[in-house]
Amino acid sequence: MNTDKQLDRVLQAADDGLPAALDRLMDFLRIPSISTDPAHAGDVQDAARWLRDELAGLGFDAQVQQTTGHPMVTATSQPGAARDLLFYGHYDVQPVDPLDLWDSPPFEPRIEDLPDGAVIRGRGAADDKGQLMTFVEACRAWKSVHGTLPPGLKLLFEGEEESGSPSLRPFLRDHADALRASLALICDTGMYSDGRPAITTQLRGLVGEEIIIDAADRDLHSGSFGGLAANPVQVLVDILSTIKDDTGRITLPGFYDGVPELTNALRADWDSLGFDAGEFLSRVGLKQPVGETGRSGLEMIWARPTFEINGIAGGYAGDGFKTVLPAKAVAKISFRLTGDQDPDQIRAAFRDRVQSMLPADCRVTFHAHGGSPASRMNIDDPAFAVAKSALTEEWGREAAFIGAGGSIPIAGDFQQILGMDSMLIGFGRDDDRIHSPNEKYDVESFRRGTRSWIRVLAALT
Amino acid sequence: MNTDKQLDRVLQAADDGLPAALDRLMDFLRIPSISTDPAHAGDVQDAARWLRDELAGLGFDAQVQQTTGHPMVTATSQPGAARDLLFYGHYDVQPVDPLDLWDSPPFEPRIEDLPDGAVIRGRGAADDKGQLMTFVEACRAWKSVHGTLPPGLKLLFEGEEESGSPSLRPFLRDHADALRASLALICDTGMYSDGRPAITTQLRGLVGEEIIIDAADRDLHSGSFGGLAANPVQVLVDILSTIKDDTGRITLPGFYDGVPELTNALRADWDSLGFDAGEFLSRVGLKQPVGETGRSGLEMIWARPTFEINGIAGGYAGDGFKTVLPAKAVAKISFRLTGDQDPDQIRAAFRDRVQSMLPADCRVTFHAHGGSPASRMNIDDPAFAVAKSALTEEWGREAAFIGAGGSIPIAGDFQQILGMDSMLIGFGRDDDRIHSPNEKYDVESFRRGTRSWIRVLAALT
Repeated sequence: MNTDKQLDRVLQAADDGLPAALDRLMDFLRIPSISTDPAHAGDVQDAARWLRDELAGLGFDAQVQQTTGHPMVTATSQPGAARDLLFYGHYDVQPVDPLDLWDSPPFEPRIEDLPDGAVIRGRGAADDKGQLMTFVEACRAWKSVHGTLPPGLKLLFEGEEESGSPSLRPFLRDHADALRASLALICDTGMYSDGRPAITTQLRGLVGEEIIIDAADRDLHSGSFGGLAANPVQVLVDILSTIKDDTGRITLPGFYDGVPELTNALRADWDSLGFDAGEFLSRVGLKQPVGETGRSGLEMIWARPTFEINGIAGGYAGDGFKTVLPAKAVAKISFRLTGDQDPDQIRAAFRDRVQSMLPADCRVTFHAHGGSPASRMNIDDPAFAVAKSALTEEWGREAAFIGAGGSIPIAGDFQQILGMDSMLIGFGRDDDRIHSPNEKYDVESFRRGTRSWIRVLAALT
Repeated sequence: MNTDKQLDRVLQAADDGLPAALDRLMDFLRIPSISTDPAHAGDVQDAARWLRDELAGLGFDAQVQQTTGHPMVTATSQPGAARDLLFYGHYDVQPVDPLDLWDSPPFEPRIEDLPDGAVIRGRGAADDKGQLMTFVEACRAWKSVHGTLPPGLKLLFEGEEESGSPSLRPFLRDHADALRASLALICDTGMYSDGRPAITTQLRGLVGEEIIIDAADRDLHSGSFGGLAANPVQVLVDILSTIKDDTGRITLPGFYDGVPELTNALRADWDSLGFDAGEFLSRVGLKQPVGETGRSGLEMIWARPTFEINGIAGGYAGDGFKTVLPAKAVAKISFRLTGDQDPDQIRAAFRDRVQSMLPADCRVTFHAHGGSPASRMNIDDPAFAVAKSALTEEWGREAAFIGAGGSIPIAGDFQQILGMDSMLIGFGRDDDRIHSPNEKYDVESFRRGTRSWIRVLAALT
């Protein structure tokens, strides 16, 4: 039972507590919890403990739960809510290379006052430490007024989101009863590109794959062997050049099985957003959309499957020049999935393509790096309408139901393993440079994000 | 005037001096003179000074001559020869990465006793420090018997052979009169693959090129931008996959202008060598020749032009997985040239291909890394017959005139700038692993190589 008066007091408490909340976030951001780099395993543990201690200090029943990989942090508040809710975020971060492109050290976060407002600069500021802390700080403000935490909350914080979440599905299965709730709240998405508040209702899936092609048992002299010996970099290049055709369509057999066309309703909604692909690209120094001919910009990033080469390496690419015929070549590639595309089937079709083009003297090794189907939420749950008006009220702009190009496998996992839908609300901006040097999060996103969760909690608990 | 008796005494002196000669070579190999890595510039200077001091100690008039790059070491003996000779070698070495593939540190050379005989293990043992020292030690043995050095010798040692020789041509132009001789002796090649002594009479040329493709002004999240933003790695891959067709022929316009077919005589000579491509490849863990259909193995490595990708890099290829859409991609490629192919024309044709396939949002930067035409020697110079019988006598096997797949631009430079031919005599083996981890040089190559030069000098000076 929350009166408007109580709500206003909680919102005010959040504003009054902003400086202290930012200090806490800075402490969190100083921990280099890069989950994909084994050298940082200890830092990931430190970040988990830091978060557990914060939650316990707020009165949550909080634990660090070890897995075979990085740990999960779980917490619960007292029962007694109209409906219980599971909140999800991740405390691990992306690698920081190329380090020399950072204007300040990625793990020495700082507040920068820019013409458009203050920003929090540092790896993880937006993805996802800053975002998950908006919910924690909402709970803190709530308790400072009500004396108790919002009831019926379950919190789940993951430390492997940026490294394929190997431990997540087993953990969800082992703790299904403890984690299941009426709805999941996920804070790992952004607002619409013009800053309009948004609830993400569909996400692309992901298939990540690493390919290693080996040929000779050593690097060779390209003069002595060139023209006679297989070059694994050439083999890799020839294979990767066949995955897409000239129209940007992916050529793997059966790849488009289960890819839906946009409904007219959704197409109309998205058209109304007035997305300008050229303007969107201009923020990163580009201007010409590539990709499938005959598709709109939003379709390409929200509703069409893609193939990207995320990394490639082979031979000598350092200073100077080395006339070597390389012994091996490596690529990391990924597919974004939509609709009902089957990650396993697409991974198999890709591996078949590689195998079919492999010359006699080459051997290939595959490593799977995460696979998850796309997700579409059931927006008939009244919580979506409630949240939409809460966001509209907080930001003073009509909130939108949007799609997202990124993959948040957890949403699909919640559906498949816990049988529950997710409401994806986030406050990131397109210029937050997540996964890139100089990542930032607007202080305004952090402040209004906290206030937005207060409104949502007031309406739902 | 040399009698057989004197010759035998010099040969004996070389054998007696072998242990001390190996000690000197070890000192030389301990200097990490990697010319392509700016971090090793000081080591290259040290190697030059070491060599100058050795030569001065032998009675040569020797100098270290600085250039805008790494220095040249030059030396002369007293006049009075039947014909003066210019000897060339290079004291710089290849980079050593991947370092973890070395069984012992590359710059801690050692003698290893193997079933087939002792070898000198270390970077530069064969390419080219060990080879050039065979000539220096031949001069030492000569002087110990004659009391004087072989007359009419000019020595030129380069420190940039493994990094495109940027200073060489200007140096040759500036010192043409001092360097010109009746014939150049170059010791940077190998014996025929079965260990038969050989004089290399034709060499492939080289065009080395680095391509850097830039797209967005930062690495992007492949979820947020994938499908809409240009991926420079994909662009690079698509371009490099078009350079060769399915038959292994290079598709650049005019590429084969000036490529000669083998003369029937030469084809017959080479056929008589009984080259077995499968056996040759089996030494490096391969078995299937690739390359142009319908060409013999020796043709492919000695007499046909090639295209190789020597290195490629872009995006994230480290541990784990990073769903990044890279901002840039880099490749290092090279062409091997034959006959009268024009390096400049071929570089231009390659750059045209890249430019023609570049999408609107990508920019390309090119860096030239060396360009030299192929070389064919005039084997009518009687010195070739004299050297052939000297080699035959020393090794007890009929010496052969052969080709070489590698590029030794100096031979072409001597022809074009000094108007003199070169006689390429070397004692390397196909399993010396030059340019690769665990490079070695047979002690027998070092010993008989020294003795071979003694015989050649006795016959020519």
